[in-house]
Amino acid sequence: MDIRNEVRKMKEDSPAMAALSLEIRNRALADAAAALTANREEIFAANRADMDAAKESGVAPAVMKRLKFDEKKLTDVIEGIADLIRLPDPLSQVQLCRELDEGLTLQRVTCPIGVIGIIFEARPDALVQISALCIKSGNCAVLKGGKETSRTNKVLFNLIYKAVTASGLPKGCMLQAEQHNEIDELLSCHDCVDLLIPRGSNQFVQYIMNNTKIPVMGHADGVCHIYADEFCDLEKAIPILVDAKTQYTAACNAVETLLVHRRIAGDFLPAAAKALTGAGVKLRGTKEAADIISCEVMGEEEFNTEYLELVLSVKLVDSLEEAVAHINRFGSHHTDCILTENQENALKFMQLTDSAGVYQNCSTRFADGFRYGFGAEVGISTGKIHARGPVGLEGLVTYKYKLFGSGQIVGDYASGKKSFHFKNLDAISS
Amino acid sequence: MDIRNEVRKMKEDSPAMAALSLEIRNRALADAAAALTANREEIFAANRADMDAAKESGVAPAVMKRLKFDEKKLTDVIEGIADLIRLPDPLSQVQLCRELDEGLTLQRVTCPIGVIGIIFEARPDALVQISALCIKSGNCAVLKGGKETSRTNKVLFNLIYKAVTASGLPKGCMLQAEQHNEIDELLSCHDCVDLLIPRGSNQFVQYIMNNTKIPVMGHADGVCHIYADEFCDLEKAIPILVDAKTQYTAACNAVETLLVHRRIAGDFLPAAAKALTGAGVKLRGTKEAADIISCEVMGEEEFNTEYLELVLSVKLVDSLEEAVAHINRFGSHHTDCILTENQENALKFMQLTDSAGVYQNCSTRFADGFRYGFGAEVGISTGKIHARGPVGLEGLVTYKYKLFGSGQIVGDYASGKKSFHFKNLDAISS
Repeated sequence: MDIRNEVRKMKEDSPAMAALSLEIRNRALADAAAALTANREEIFAANRADMDAAKESGVAPAVMKRLKFDEKKLTDVIEGIADLIRLPDPLSQVQLCRELDEGLTLQRVTCPIGVIGIIFEARPDALVQISALCIKSGNCAVLKGGKETSRTNKVLFNLIYKAVTASGLPKGCMLQAEQHNEIDELLSCHDCVDLLIPRGSNQFVQYIMNNTKIPVMGHADGVCHIYADEFCDLEKAIPILVDAKTQYTAACNAVETLLVHRRIAGDFLPAAAKALTGAGVKLRGTKEAADIISCEVMGEEEFNTEYLELVLSVKLVDSLEEAVAHINRFGSHHTDCILTENQENALKFMQLTDSAGVYQNCSTRFADGFRYGFGAEVGISTGKIHARGPVGLEGLVTYKYKLFGSGQIVGDYASGKKSFHFKNLDAISS
Repeated sequence: MDIRNEVRKMKEDSPAMAALSLEIRNRALADAAAALTANREEIFAANRADMDAAKESGVAPAVMKRLKFDEKKLTDVIEGIADLIRLPDPLSQVQLCRELDEGLTLQRVTCPIGVIGIIFEARPDALVQISALCIKSGNCAVLKGGKETSRTNKVLFNLIYKAVTASGLPKGCMLQAEQHNEIDELLSCHDCVDLLIPRGSNQFVQYIMNNTKIPVMGHADGVCHIYADEFCDLEKAIPILVDAKTQYTAACNAVETLLVHRRIAGDFLPAAAKALTGAGVKLRGTKEAADIISCEVMGEEEFNTEYLELVLSVKLVDSLEEAVAHINRFGSHHTDCILTENQENALKFMQLTDSAGVYQNCSTRFADGFRYGFGAEVGISTGKIHARGPVGLEGLVTYKYKLFGSGQIVGDYASGKKSFHFKNLDAISS
C-alpha cells in the first residue's frame, strides 16, 4: 500500500466526513459496537495468537498485560462507545454570533480538525477508543498500532471499518497502516495530515516530534513531582505518595520526584521512606537526603529522570518557591502536586507551577480523561498550544468563521462611509 | 547580547508575569500609552531617520507606507491600548468546575502561554500592538522587528519597557532582539519559547516554520478565492470582486482566484472583466476563460499563486463541488467566498470548504481581527491547531487543570472502594 496516496484520498474525503449529521455518526458508533460484540470470538482468537507470539519472543509480563484484549476489555470499550454516543455533538456549536453591521453576520462554528494520524504502541483497546473519538468528532483517522498486537488490531479495524462504512461513513474515514516503514511515510504527509497523536514511550514520541512538520499533540515524558510543604499533613501525605509512586508505575502520571521542605524533613522523610521502601520503592536522593534516610546519592542533573518503575528521587528545598523553580526546570509540565494544609500556599503553588495539572493533597495518578469525567481520551498533552492535559472530544475539533453578507465591501468601511456596530446576537444553530 | 541566555532568564520570570493581577497589567498598559504620548517627538524623529534611510536604499513606496509611524499611527495605537484595557481579563477564567467526588474538585482555569516570540517585518505599530496584547494576557514577549524600522522600534520598545517595568512587571517581561542572526538563535530556543508568531512574507514565514521545533502560529500565504455560483447576483458580485482584489492588494486576505460556474460564465465573465480591468487588474485564466474574455492563458499548476498585486486567476467550474475541491486543493485555507442568492448552496460551500474564513456575498478583505470586533490581533492563523483565523487575546492563553483534594488516592477508585460522581459546579473564581 502506498500510504501517502491513501492519505491524500482520505484528505479529499474529509469534508464529507466533516459534514455528516450527528445521527449518522452516532449510528456508525452503535453499529461498530454491535459488530465487535457479534464477532468477539474472532477478536479473542486473534488476540490469543498475538499473546502467544509475544510470550514466545519474551515480552515482559507488564507489557503482556497491555496486549491483552479479553471479555473485560471488550466490555470496557463497548461501554466507552455507549458513553460517547450519549455525549453532545462537539460539531456545529456556534461559539460566537456577532452582527458586524446590518446584514453582515459573523459566526464562529466548531468543526473537525480533518485528518488525524494516531500512532500507538501495544494496547489494542486504544485502537477502538481512538477510532470512536474520531468518528464522533467527524475526523478521518490514520491508525498505526504496535506490531505486538497486529493480529488483534487488524481484526478490530476491519470489523469497525466495515460497520461504519455500511452505516454511511465515507470510504476514506479510516485507514490502518500496518507496516513499520509506513510511520515515516505518514510523518511526511504534512500536506494531508492535520494532527499527529503519538502514544508510547518517551523515545518513540520524541522521534515523532523530531521528524515531522505536522503538529504533534501528546507528551514525551511524565516527570511528575510531589512537594511536601512545610504545612503538610503527614497522615494524608504518606498514602498519596505511595499511591502516586506504586499504583501503576509505568504510567506517565506516576510520581518520579519527591521534594520536601527542609523544616519538616526530619519528621517527614523517615516516615515516607518507611512506607515507600515497605511498598518496594528504591529511594535515590541528594547527599542531604541521604543524611536523613538511607538512599543512593544522585547528581543534580539526574532529576529529570522518568523511572517508570519503583524508584523515586528525593530532594530537600528551602521554600515553596524553590520547589516550584525545581519543578519548572526539571519537570515535564505534566502533573505536579503540593501536599499542604495552607490554602494560600496551595494557590501560590498552583499559580506558579507551569504544568497541565497542578494538584493539592491528592495523587498525581488522577491525571486521566476518564477520572476527569471526559469519557475516553486520545492522550494527555504537555504542550500549551491547542489542548493541554487529558484530551477528549474537545481537543479533536477546531472552528471556522462563517461570514454572511449581502454585498458588503471593505472600501466602504475604510473610507468611513459605513462603520461596524458589533452586536452580539444569541447564538443560533448554524 | 546572548539571546538564548536572555530568553532563559525570561522563562524563569514567566510564572511571575503570569501571576500579575489584572490591575497591574492594566496599569502597565496605561503607563506605556502615557510614555508613548509624552515622548512622541522622540518616536517621530527616529521614524524620520528610518524613512530617510529607507528612501535612500530604494525601498518601494508601498513598503514605505508601512514603515511610517506618525501622529495618526500613534493615535491608533494609543486608542488600541485603551480598548485593550477595557477588555475583560483573559486570565483566571474558570472554564470548568467539577466535583469528581466528595472533597475532590477539578477546575480548568485559563493562564498565559508563557514566552512568545514575535518576528515581524516593517510596521512599527505592530510592535506596540503585539506588546500590548502580550502584557494584557500575562505573556512574556521576545520581539524582533524589521531592520528598516530599527530606530523606531528601539525607541518604542525602550519607552514601553521602561514604563511597564516601573509599573511592576518583572524584568523579563519583554526583550527586543535587534540583530538578524538573533532570529536563528531564537528559533533554537524550543526549551524556553512556547510559541512563535511570525508576520511577514510567505518566504519569511515558511523559513521560520521549517527551521524550528517551536509551535508556529500564523500563515505563510493567503491564496483566497471567490466563487461566483450559478445563483449569484451580478449587481452585488462585481463590487465585492473589485474590492477583494484592489482595496489593498498586498494583504493576505486579498482575492487571488475567481472561480465561475460555467452556466453563468457567458454573462458574468465579461462584466467582471470590464470592472476589473477598469480598476487596473490584469487577468490570467484557463484556455476556456480566455475564449470568453481577453486574458493571458495560464497552466493548472499555477493556480496556487499568491500575486499580492493587481493580477487575478480565472477558472470555470461545473459545480459548487468542483469549486470547493479546487479551493481545498489550491487554496491556503485562509478565507474563501461564495457569491450566491441560494442559501442552501451558501451553507454547503461553508460546510465543505476547509478554510479559517468561509464567506457569503462579501469581500474576503473582512478577514481581520479589528473587523471581527476582536480589538487588536496578533495575526491570522491558517493552522487548525490552537487558534484559527484572526487571533486576538484568546489565542494567547491556554489553561491548566487545578485539582483540589483532601487525601484522595487512585487505588481506592481502581479497587472499587470509592467511585467518582462527576457533579458540575457553578464556576467560582479561582
